[in-house]
Amino acid sequence: MRPDNRPLNQARPIKITRHYTKHAEGSVLVEFGDTKVLCTASVEENVPRFLKGQGQGWVTAEYGMLPRSTHSRMQRESAKGKQSGRTMEIQRLIARSLRAMIDLTALGERSITLDCDVIQADGGTRTASITGACVALCDAIHQLMANGTLKTNPIKGLVAAISVGIVNGEAVCDLEYVEDSAAETDMNVVMCEDGRMIEVQGTAEGEPFSHEELLQLLDLAKQGCQQIFAVQHQALAQ
Amino acid sequence: MRPDNRPLNQARPIKITRHYTKHAEGSVLVEFGDTKVLCTASVEENVPRFLKGQGQGWVTAEYGMLPRSTHSRMQRESAKGKQSGRTMEIQRLIARSLRAMIDLTALGERSITLDCDVIQADGGTRTASITGACVALCDAIHQLMANGTLKTNPIKGLVAAISVGIVNGEAVCDLEYVEDSAAETDMNVVMCEDGRMIEVQGTAEGEPFSHEELLQLLDLAKQGCQQIFAVQHQALAQ
Amino acid sequence: MRPDNRPLNQARPIKITRHYTKHAEGSVLVEFGDTKVLCTASVEENVPRFLKGQGQGWVTAEYGMLPRSTHSRMQRESAKGKQSGRTMEIQRLIARSLRAMIDLTALGERSITLDCDVIQADGGTRTASITGACVALCDAIHQLMANGTLKTNPIKGLVAAISVGIVNGEAVCDLEYVEDSAAETDMNVVMCEDGRMIEVQGTAEGEPFSHEELLQLLDLAKQGCQQIFAVQHQALAQ
Amino acid sequence: MRPDNRPLNQARPIKITRHYTKHAEGSVLVEFGDTKVLCTASVEENVPRFLKGQGQGWVTAEYGMLPRSTHSRMQRESAKGKQSGRTMEIQRLIARSLRAMIDLTALGERSITLDCDVIQADGGTRTASITGACVALCDAIHQLMANGTLKTNPIKGLVAAISVGIVNGEAVCDLEYVEDSAAETDMNVVMCEDGRMIEVQGTAEGEPFSHEELLQLLDLAKQGCQQIFAVQHQALAQ
Amino acid sequence: MRPDNRPLNQARPIKITRHYTKHAEGSVLVEFGDTKVLCTASVEENVPRFLKGQGQGWVTAEYGMLPRSTHSRMQRESAKGKQSGRTMEIQRLIARSLRAMIDLTALGERSITLDCDVIQADGGTRTASITGACVALCDAIHQLMANGTLKTNPIKGLVAAISVGIVNGEAVCDLEYVEDSAAETDMNVVMCEDGRMIEVQGTAEGEPFSHEELLQLLDLAKQGCQQIFAVQHQALAQ
Amino acid sequence: MRPDNRPLNQARPIKITRHYTKHAEGSVLVEFGDTKVLCTASVEENVPRFLKGQGQGWVTAEYGMLPRSTHSRMQRESAKGKQSGRTMEIQRLIARSLRAMIDLTALGERSITLDCDVIQADGGTRTASITGACVALCDAIHQLMANGTLKTNPIKGLVAAISVGIVNGEAVCDLEYVEDSAAETDMNVVMCEDGRMIEVQGTAEGEPFSHEELLQLLDLAKQGCQQIFAVQHQALAQ
Repeated sequence: MRPDNRPLNQARPIKITRHYTKHAEGSVLVEFGDTKVLCTASVEENVPRFLKGQGQGWVTAEYGMLPRSTHSRMQRESAKGKQSGRTMEIQRLIARSLRAMIDLTALGERSITLDCDVIQADGGTRTASITGACVALCDAIHQLMANGTLKTNPIKGLVAAISVGIVNGEAVCDLEYVEDSAAETDMNVVMCEDGRMIEVQGTAEGEPFSHEELLQLLDLAKQGCQQIFAVQHQALAQ
Repeated sequence: MRPDNRPLNQARPIKITRHYTKHAEGSVLVEFGDTKVLCTASVEENVPRFLKGQGQGWVTAEYGMLPRSTHSRMQRESAKGKQSGRTMEIQRLIARSLRAMIDLTALGERSITLDCDVIQADGGTRTASITGACVALCDAIHQLMANGTLKTNPIKGLVAAISVGIVNGEAVCDLEYVEDSAAETDMNVVMCEDGRMIEVQGTAEGEPFSHEELLQLLDLAKQGCQQIFAVQHQALAQ
Repeated sequence: MRPDNRPLNQARPIKITRHYTKHAEGSVLVEFGDTKVLCTASVEENVPRFLKGQGQGWVTAEYGMLPRSTHSRMQRESAKGKQSGRTMEIQRLIARSLRAMIDLTALGERSITLDCDVIQADGGTRTASITGACVALCDAIHQLMANGTLKTNPIKGLVAAISVGIVNGEAVCDLEYVEDSAAETDMNVVMCEDGRMIEVQGTAEGEPFSHEELLQLLDLAKQGCQQIFAVQHQALAQ
Repeated sequence: MRPDNRPLNQARPIKITRHYTKHAEGSVLVEFGDTKVLCTASVEENVPRFLKGQGQGWVTAEYGMLPRSTHSRMQRESAKGKQSGRTMEIQRLIARSLRAMIDLTALGERSITLDCDVIQADGGTRTASITGACVALCDAIHQLMANGTLKTNPIKGLVAAISVGIVNGEAVCDLEYVEDSAAETDMNVVMCEDGRMIEVQGTAEGEPFSHEELLQLLDLAKQGCQQIFAVQHQALAQ
Repeated sequence: MRPDNRPLNQARPIKITRHYTKHAEGSVLVEFGDTKVLCTASVEENVPRFLKGQGQGWVTAEYGMLPRSTHSRMQRESAKGKQSGRTMEIQRLIARSLRAMIDLTALGERSITLDCDVIQADGGTRTASITGACVALCDAIHQLMANGTLKTNPIKGLVAAISVGIVNGEAVCDLEYVEDSAAETDMNVVMCEDGRMIEVQGTAEGEPFSHEELLQLLDLAKQGCQQIFAVQHQALAQ
Repeated sequence: MRPDNRPLNQARPIKITRHYTKHAEGSVLVEFGDTKVLCTASVEENVPRFLKGQGQGWVTAEYGMLPRSTHSRMQRESAKGKQSGRTMEIQRLIARSLRAMIDLTALGERSITLDCDVIQADGGTRTASITGACVALCDAIHQLMANGTLKTNPIKGLVAAISVGIVNGEAVCDLEYVEDSAAETDMNVVMCEDGRMIEVQGTAEGEPFSHEELLQLLDLAKQGCQQIFAVQHQALAQ
């Protein structure tokens, strides 16, 4: 039995609140059950040095957790003086995923930074971050279109991300913390709306996983992403 | 004329939401107008090394701003690898202010860390932080009392903080960002309920300030803190 | 046509040299074509703090590139004062993969650190690292068995890793640098000898990849790992 | 009874030695009793990036303590790899105070850095630093006037700083270390010659302080600053 | 008796392998007995800021040890976040020594970085580094001559380095680790082919050394360097 | 002609002021002409971890320059977040030199830290530091003897240090800054009273130096150290 009697193939209730804060060009609070992440998109009219003069833009991401977003307090990374390997790994994943939905040449020589800050953590913070950042990025792009900065829409499509895994021998969708910490296999999948994949990251925490288990997990991930795309479209339609 | 026609001696609408996140022993979202700060209190059953074996507890604080809490994006301090002087100055102020409301001996050999993270900034983030952290600290202490960890209440009273300043030659209470950046003098005051002061930090940004101006500012601060204490008590009564 | 007319499903010549340096308990030079990585295993008779007193051991890994292992010189990470996100990501992957082959309880309260230092890079440094570190780890364990420190062999089996990807629309095995930098999809797979997987990390660098492409890549990875296991067994037999 | 039977309203013997070292444009050893701080002013013909092209100059400050300036040895901040919060707080205070005495537009596009290094500490190092840096800054400006770099004198007036506090229930002026560590309230005041204030920073270390106590402390601070201005003028007249 | 019955005035077998890795302009594996160092020379078409526009080039060096090049594992400097004092001292010595063999004006506005990475350490890593880097630097210069970038050869001559010391009261040449750790005096000498010296660094680890002992050591160093110059010339002739 | 017509073999006027500051167990201002260094010795009743329980003490050193001790202002190392290679090299030299004068077993399990902070730099700061730290160390040891902490005097003898070099083709003693920056060869020598050497560090800045030149420099160093020992003894006799 999963927590709250959730069916194996069902994501937690997902909620997307746009315009959550007032300064950012895109600002979204995304909730996957009790996991809450604030995703902002910030536009800057320049590009990193390695791209200067190449007629294309850039999309990057940073990730952080508030010290007490977790069950016991984590040390603040700015106080420690460095970001952990986990933080770096996650923000690189978010950035690659979001870049996949943008035509960087159509974006022109400007950068968009997605900041994903976890307000409350209950499993799946990286997949919630990608899901929310996608909507924040759309809002930022729409503002650039609306004020005439951009003539062509550089958005190639939405992206969504979900975690799937094997818990007590069963494949389940969208693991919350208690499931995640007991999972034998944990997999994060980032998808396009047409079902093709941008990222697949599967890790055997305990037992290695078989080809058949992998296929099961990919099937669950596809179902989960479809639920997410529906919520994203609904939010963007408001 | 102040923004929104606010009277000179009036603080912005102040809102305190308790139990804002689920993991922390105390968790408060405090709003001073558009300034929004999440304040959590985390209890740990040990003390810093310099206090070990002395039969007393400790209260400390950390402060951070989300990168896009501000008008233009600030660099993330964890990515820069260090906290700015401003951040350190503010978190030291918050810690001193909160320690003043606790009998550290009655707290016993345990620590409480107040994390104040600015979700949205519009002036007065440090005074909002102290005000919200006070309530989060009360909630954490009440939980320690309720579960029997503490027998005696170590809370000596509430603390509130307000910024006052001289803008266009007039003394005003609770400056928002547009006022703050134009202020000739900026002063932060932390008070107890009996009107005595814990901290007074006044800075002449342009012209030096006279003794008379200082008295005017202190009077406004007292009025502002009275408004805040009312909101704190109301929140704690719910 | 692949470089050197290599068939699509074939790994580069793989060479494993044991006892490459004299101080380490395990020391292996692994070569995947022109990619050369020195993998050493170092045994220490203690465990990280979070494992103290729990009757189990630990396996961890660190990864580095010599500054001129690459086509143009990279800045030395010790001189920059921090490891890049890529470095951290890779060393976490190596550590997880190697831990999967060891029964940590049977290892007892000791740690083994795998250092993977890239002498020359030509694509696939992380998969070569895992492949070589596996053999170095075996050597270190065998030494602990030989000198009587360990009574029970904690090795559960070998692990091998290979990169696969889609280059010019075709799925290929074990990408070298020129292929890697042109790949539309890049995937690293870590396998056990029974064909089950420990890690799958697939990334669409350009176009998203379909379910069918994923299956093709997994099939190639399995073939590549079989080639690697043969080389590992041959090296260990000497 | 205060140490050395000093009257409550009297500062320690204050001594200012100009031209203390030979390289700096201004170099002052300031002594407040046993507290000794070397203050140098260094002129550079450029401004920080945020001021470039705006036709104004900049005044900044850095503060440090020699490791054995204190009773027991402090760790060297350069060896630790970062400045403490206290150091940052103090150098920001010194910089703001000194900027208040200079017309930055009249200074032109150049910077003056005040380095305040504590040779021996016995309480009041930040107020001694401001007092000494004021004279070093005057010397640097006079040199710029003398060699024709500056046509108009950008000095608006002198600044002086003093600590006051409540010790054993009595308000006292210019606390030395034994008083400072026992003080219930500690206040630093930076003043202009006309008695107006640039900074007021009062902190209740133990009991909160009342409005009346604040007024008493401000009165003592004014008396103390008058003593300091006399010493500064005398030093500058030589 | 020295290890392996080596005569007091004889260096260990010295071996220089050119073109050891494929990317660098110069790449040399140098072996002094069991000490093995990979030395690469990397050419960049620019100079550090302090030399811009002065019509001269620059030669610099960096040094590192692989974590398990030593008997027990050393912490990785990139993970610690800083280079040790010993590392900095050695790389400054290597750089000064190599700069002495180059006419920087003839080199033109370009930089050559020598990276010396210790694969296996058994005493004398800094002298092996200088010796190997000299050959790598020659190879890089020859390549710049061969492709027409340089018209004039900026090489003034070769440099070689050897350690000498007093062990058990006797002066010996080229100390290996067991000798080095027991030495009363340890001296590193860097020489030109004409016997003149570039660096002499002698340190009394136990007893101070006399003038006569110093002369003895210098004589041994001269003999050792002559052996090294022969090996360098032989390697360069191939 | 040398500056001030100083003879080739003569050191600058050397002055040693004991008890320069009040907190340290040893506190010496040492002056070599215009070079002024404050050297303090701090005793701590414990040893670094690697020496615990071995029944011996430790002597270490740290070195720093005040930002404006030099002709143009240097960046503060604590603000940069790290010590330069030069700083590390110098403080390692000072520590080794001072350790050579102490019987560490007779010192017992305690540490003495020598802090050498340059107040004003005019060449020879490292040799002045060693010379002054020697006297500060004597004062600290004498205090430990006087208060009964130490029964046996662990001092084996005094050490002195001098720089010598070749300037305009002539060997000179105790180079000041203008000479140092023009020197072809620069050598620092640390000696015992019996003329034996603890450190010799010679560097060819321009031309390599011959055996004869080295002998000349060592002779000058010996003469210089004799002048220094006289000043040290005179200071200690007061």
